[in-house]
Amino acid sequence: MINKLADKIRKTGAPIVVGLDPTMKFVPEHIQKRAFAEFGETTKGAAEAVWQYNKAIVDNIYDLIPAVKPQIAMYEQFGIEGLIAFQKTVEYCKQKGLIVIGDVKRGDIGSTSEAYAVGHLGQVKVGSTMCRGFDEDFVTVNPYLGSDGVKPFIKVCQEEKKGIFVLVKTSNPSSGELQDRLVRGTAPDGGTAGADRPLYELVGEQVAKWGAECMGDSYSYVGAVVGATYPEQGKVLRKIMPKAFILVPGYGAQGGKGADLVHFFNEDGLGAIVNSSRGIIAAYQQEQYSKYGAENFADASRAAVLAMKEDIAQALSARG
Amino acid sequence: MINKLADKIRKTGAPIVVGLDPTMKFVPEHIQKRAFAEFGETTKGAAEAVWQYNKAIVDNIYDLIPAVKPQIAMYEQFGIEGLIAFQKTVEYCKQKGLIVIGDVKRGDIGSTSEAYAVGHLGQVKVGSTMCRGFDEDFVTVNPYLGSDGVKPFIKVCQEEKKGIFVLVKTSNPSSGELQDRLVRGTAPDGGTAGADRPLYELVGEQVAKWGAECMGDSYSYVGAVVGATYPEQGKVLRKIMPKAFILVPGYGAQGGKGADLVHFFNEDGLGAIVNSSRGIIAAYQQEQYSKYGAENFADASRAAVLAMKEDIAQALSARG
Repeated sequence: MINKLADKIRKTGAPIVVGLDPTMKFVPEHIQKRAFAEFGETTKGAAEAVWQYNKAIVDNIYDLIPAVKPQIAMYEQFGIEGLIAFQKTVEYCKQKGLIVIGDVKRGDIGSTSEAYAVGHLGQVKVGSTMCRGFDEDFVTVNPYLGSDGVKPFIKVCQEEKKGIFVLVKTSNPSSGELQDRLVRGTAPDGGTAGADRPLYELVGEQVAKWGAECMGDSYSYVGAVVGATYPEQGKVLRKIMPKAFILVPGYGAQGGKGADLVHFFNEDGLGAIVNSSRGIIAAYQQEQYSKYGAENFADASRAAVLAMKEDIAQALSARG
Repeated sequence: MINKLADKIRKTGAPIVVGLDPTMKFVPEHIQKRAFAEFGETTKGAAEAVWQYNKAIVDNIYDLIPAVKPQIAMYEQFGIEGLIAFQKTVEYCKQKGLIVIGDVKRGDIGSTSEAYAVGHLGQVKVGSTMCRGFDEDFVTVNPYLGSDGVKPFIKVCQEEKKGIFVLVKTSNPSSGELQDRLVRGTAPDGGTAGADRPLYELVGEQVAKWGAECMGDSYSYVGAVVGATYPEQGKVLRKIMPKAFILVPGYGAQGGKGADLVHFFNEDGLGAIVNSSRGIIAAYQQEQYSKYGAENFADASRAAVLAMKEDIAQALSARG
């Protein structure tokens, strides 16, 4: 799947993933009204609105991009009905030829992480039958519990040729509270003390180590999440994890710009995929795209994808 | 809800939470057969088996304990059908008067954490109507993303009088990889350097700080997860977070014993609630309870709860 991701980025010329994170305030009135007329102001009504909204956007942009990243929290907030919309979105995007990165940020201990891994990437045994749950292509994983919590995902990735992105340095303002903490240095062999380093660097080293166990052609099935809002850290992490694809959130609405992104990429122009969520899916609410109007929200999304593609391409060509 | 938890612990004399983590290998053959006969070897069949298994156990132990802790991963592995069984379990346990701790280990950035918080503890706005998703009483939260990721949960806890348990020092063998890292010291005001300390202590301090914002009568709505497998660390963390209830996993099957637990409790005999999952729900598979047989698995669970209660009571009284 990591090879497929690299291929699709080359073909589309767009190292872009669109975050399908549909909060109700993004969903145009006319879609909400239609869904509520059918299912009432219920979680089922909300889920229907979200699904119709996603579908229209995906139909309008699927040919431009390699991947989408539905954020499961935005569906889980509506309980079971929301998760049914999540599943429909995953299936539909895969039918459209898109790679689906489930932004689930799961992570637990041993057998529990295994359950998440099979539920999202693999197959679960029921009697003598193997069944699939959500069946995304990639998921995001939280590393706070250590290798115990990550290795079950890697095992399933190896079996299924799928992948994960481990949270290393997240895009949010308070990510530094734990992730930037300077950790007393140890040499790579765990022996004599080296220099103090921030925690995210250690996590980055772990990602490189885990990733070595499951390589695609040029990149590993084990990638990393590093926020566009921290370009300097991205530069360092790019070197620590040369074979890891970096999923880069924080572009656009969170403040990251094209020029901030260049250090996340390798010389081959690959190695990073930049996420934008509300910048694309709620483009119609921005002044820049207001001419489209709420009725044509999906056209605004298409225009925003094209602009983002251009912004990144310019930044990459400017680095020479 | 934290007051209710303390009350129920006092009334039952059992600072115990039973982990409803039903993997298929725990579910007795006869329950699996019946469910598969009705729904086939499908995720729906698995979910039905899990639900019947949970229900029988809950019916047999609900009068002995204050709370249950369903681990959502064990349901999520079966996709939507599994999550329906999770929801049925949450609802049923609440009807039986049990407090429900959703072991979801969620955590994300700002608005995304807010979506998890409303989906699991609060209410989500749909049109002009407020709807509820999974509606547990407490959830577990992963702190790797910092305050941004935790505060939206706290806000919902304040509105709903519910609570969270933040992962501080988890029970698994590799929890130390990040959590035990010695972090360069800073004074509490962030100024001049103090002694180096492990990361989990800093997280513990954060828990105490977050918790001060939302206090019940004696304990805060913001609790912590600290593994029974790390009693020495539990002793330190107990002092750092005097007002936090500690959810203690790792008792029994993971190796923690009654005597290890005493340091997690305060002088009032409260402040900790000890989880056992397979030690209770799969008791019938242990030699000690094999006389019950698979048919009477729920009776074995009851006997195991009583034994656990006795073990903890003895340990607490031995400390004098």
